[in-house]
Amino acid sequence: MSVLDRLLAALGPDAVTAGPQVPERFCHDWSGEPAVQPLALIRPRTTAEVAIALRVCFETTTPIVPQGGRSGLCGGARPISQGIALSLDRMNRVIAVDRLQSTLTGEAGCVLETAQAAAAGAGLLLGVDLGARGTCTLGGVISTNAGGNQVLRYGMTRDNVLGLEVVLADGTVLPAMNSLLKNNVGIDLKQMFIGSEGCLGVVTQAVFRLHPRPPHNVTAFAGCADTQAMLSLLAHCRAVFGPALTSFEVMWPGFYDLMRAGIGAPHPVQGSHGLYVIIEAGGFDARITDQMEACLADALEAGLVGDATLAHNGREERGLWAVRESVSEYGRILGALTPFDIGLSLDRMEEAVARMEAALRQRWPDVRALFYGHMGDSNLHLVVNVPNVAVQPSKEIKPLIYDLTRELGGTVSAEHGIGTIKRDVIGYSRSDAELAAMRAVKAALDPRGILNPGRSFAP
Amino acid sequence: MSVLDRLLAALGPDAVTAGPQVPERFCHDWSGEPAVQPLALIRPRTTAEVAIALRVCFETTTPIVPQGGRSGLCGGARPISQGIALSLDRMNRVIAVDRLQSTLTGEAGCVLETAQAAAAGAGLLLGVDLGARGTCTLGGVISTNAGGNQVLRYGMTRDNVLGLEVVLADGTVLPAMNSLLKNNVGIDLKQMFIGSEGCLGVVTQAVFRLHPRPPHNVTAFAGCADTQAMLSLLAHCRAVFGPALTSFEVMWPGFYDLMRAGIGAPHPVQGSHGLYVIIEAGGFDARITDQMEACLADALEAGLVGDATLAHNGREERGLWAVRESVSEYGRILGALTPFDIGLSLDRMEEAVARMEAALRQRWPDVRALFYGHMGDSNLHLVVNVPNVAVQPSKEIKPLIYDLTRELGGTVSAEHGIGTIKRDVIGYSRSDAELAAMRAVKAALDPRGILNPGRSFAP
Repeated sequence: MSVLDRLLAALGPDAVTAGPQVPERFCHDWSGEPAVQPLALIRPRTTAEVAIALRVCFETTTPIVPQGGRSGLCGGARPISQGIALSLDRMNRVIAVDRLQSTLTGEAGCVLETAQAAAAGAGLLLGVDLGARGTCTLGGVISTNAGGNQVLRYGMTRDNVLGLEVVLADGTVLPAMNSLLKNNVGIDLKQMFIGSEGCLGVVTQAVFRLHPRPPHNVTAFAGCADTQAMLSLLAHCRAVFGPALTSFEVMWPGFYDLMRAGIGAPHPVQGSHGLYVIIEAGGFDARITDQMEACLADALEAGLVGDATLAHNGREERGLWAVRESVSEYGRILGALTPFDIGLSLDRMEEAVARMEAALRQRWPDVRALFYGHMGDSNLHLVVNVPNVAVQPSKEIKPLIYDLTRELGGTVSAEHGIGTIKRDVIGYSRSDAELAAMRAVKAALDPRGILNPGRSFAP
Repeated sequence: MSVLDRLLAALGPDAVTAGPQVPERFCHDWSGEPAVQPLALIRPRTTAEVAIALRVCFETTTPIVPQGGRSGLCGGARPISQGIALSLDRMNRVIAVDRLQSTLTGEAGCVLETAQAAAAGAGLLLGVDLGARGTCTLGGVISTNAGGNQVLRYGMTRDNVLGLEVVLADGTVLPAMNSLLKNNVGIDLKQMFIGSEGCLGVVTQAVFRLHPRPPHNVTAFAGCADTQAMLSLLAHCRAVFGPALTSFEVMWPGFYDLMRAGIGAPHPVQGSHGLYVIIEAGGFDARITDQMEACLADALEAGLVGDATLAHNGREERGLWAVRESVSEYGRILGALTPFDIGLSLDRMEEAVARMEAALRQRWPDVRALFYGHMGDSNLHLVVNVPNVAVQPSKEIKPLIYDLTRELGGTVSAEHGIGTIKRDVIGYSRSDAELAAMRAVKAALDPRGILNPGRSFAP
């Protein structure tokens, strides 16, 4: 009996779609890599069905690619032609919100925004938020350890997950649905699955810790002369706000000016500056706005800031974020892009931007190298576009940027992961000993290597 | 050549002490378990020496027990008679504090208090704090994923560690000294070592993230009528303070009255209450004291609190904490004890305390069962003393408490770990599938089973 027949016999036709009938949306993610038709698509409704599917794949040594919202940027959820695509999209419920314990329990396929809304409905806050919130799923943000705009305050996805249910390669269900902040009993197994891009198991359920929801938010926009002033402003904001500092986002002028013109957004401060910063704080007291005003006045006086302004309402707030949030417009305004998601120590940030820009410009004098990022998390994004070429020279751009990243002691993936597109450079940020240890763990939990083979650290 | 001779040849007599000459303090931890003389004690000065020691142990299949400050309460650092004790006490330096990146790098044997002071010297805060701060080490708090009094605000040790250097069982050095908040490249290997009680590797260095230091602190003491009122007060404090809430410690009257009389502390509130609560908040604004006053006034008006008071200076603050911090007096006041460190959902807390007390009292009518704990973290401590017996009936007390813990869905170890003393009940909080997965990981990284055998989840 073929794998497909075995899956059909075990799960029925409702849960199993043969390759040629697989809808196109299940054949790719947001990496831009070409679509791949899998051998079959499985859409289970329960953990038991996931376990059955994995057991069949295990027994037949069939590769399996778990899928959440398929909004990943690195190719980790793209099917394998002779493998099974396992979509969790039918396991999409919020199971419970516990106000007293401050937790949310949900199925892996639950859309992040749905879970956020359920938490908000209980007067609490889910600490994970990112642009793809309407598409990405709880299982997806867990498997990539997603970051976003509030990491400074709430940490990465990892810091927000208390418990997991995972199905292992052989179909064993690992019930680790802890809901306690403290639970020190042996290895914290869930940590291995978080961020390992589906290479160790399939997440089916999760418990998230929830946070008190700050009722008062304040957003500011500032222009700084240079990186040194910006870093001093960051230190100043940390000292003023402590954990109330939610975001500290920086845009270099190359990015800011081009995108602002492209989307026709107003310029909220006077004059041109070396860097533009969005500062957001969430407070439990209405005086957070006064604190921000005082913070900016002090920064102006100390010369850390050239000009600054504050949003007075939701419309103004969205205006201050408009350029930073214009990602959906990049293609229209810039054309084809080569994007980067790197992490660097703050003391190397200025040097990194200068050297990357210089190296690109030396090779392509008219290159557009646009820098921006979550500076509070040492996370730099860069999108590169070489105008007037038939095909973007990504294969030349990447080694240039990644070589410098390695030289400066940075990471080739801050928050997006490795997937397939950074496989070549995983060794830039992990030693041979680390990769060997990862693969030893992989071999122990997935001895036949069926889970997302060839992705991230998987052989 | 014997193991001892090989170690002497490789490391020299300064680093290797033969069993009979091993100082007594290296032969036990704070668990109360009897001292054990190891085959030898090794006190390396460098990671390279740790690696050499492990290689010899690996080649000779000799058990090895890593030791930090030996202040663990579960027997995890107690030597094994035919094994090597590996103390990190000579690797005790703070290597660097990076103000800009907000990190501290230290050697594993660095005493926690030393690291805290170095962070404070840079105007920052190390988020891990516990009673044993003057004795326990960075490596020790990492290997046990230690908790403490500020978990509500800064999380467990895990949440404060960015990077590790670990020596594996075969002497391989795993360099994972990450200092970035975001670094998503494969399995986050450090997470496996944190909390695994020395069963997977020996931590030699670590990078801790540091936090802004709140310049203003306020401490309050309140009496609540019952558990329901106390839980409502907790929810109220969370909503008022958000992340500024540092501690929410609860003492049941059995504990509070006896220990207060025992240490001769004043009673800071009017009248007797069903529960006593210490609330602490750390603010970036002097108005945190006004906020606490308003918080308590609202709680009084809503009937959540019977009486409450605020510390106005450091002396008063220490006074409010005196009974809660009286752990060193337990032995003198109570005599022999059977201690517990369990975790429970907040909605089971009242039932747990009532049923545990009733079960103990049914068996021993004059039993003293003293409950207190970090209620903000769902962590309940209990010390039991049966008066007028020659030997404490620990072997009868433990199953009684742990059976109820299991029945109520709790954990047998919230923050202290398993070590040797909870080996019998590890299965109460972890399923067979979880233990099998832990042991598969152990076998992959420590194939000869030399690292802390028989402790925590290790076979």
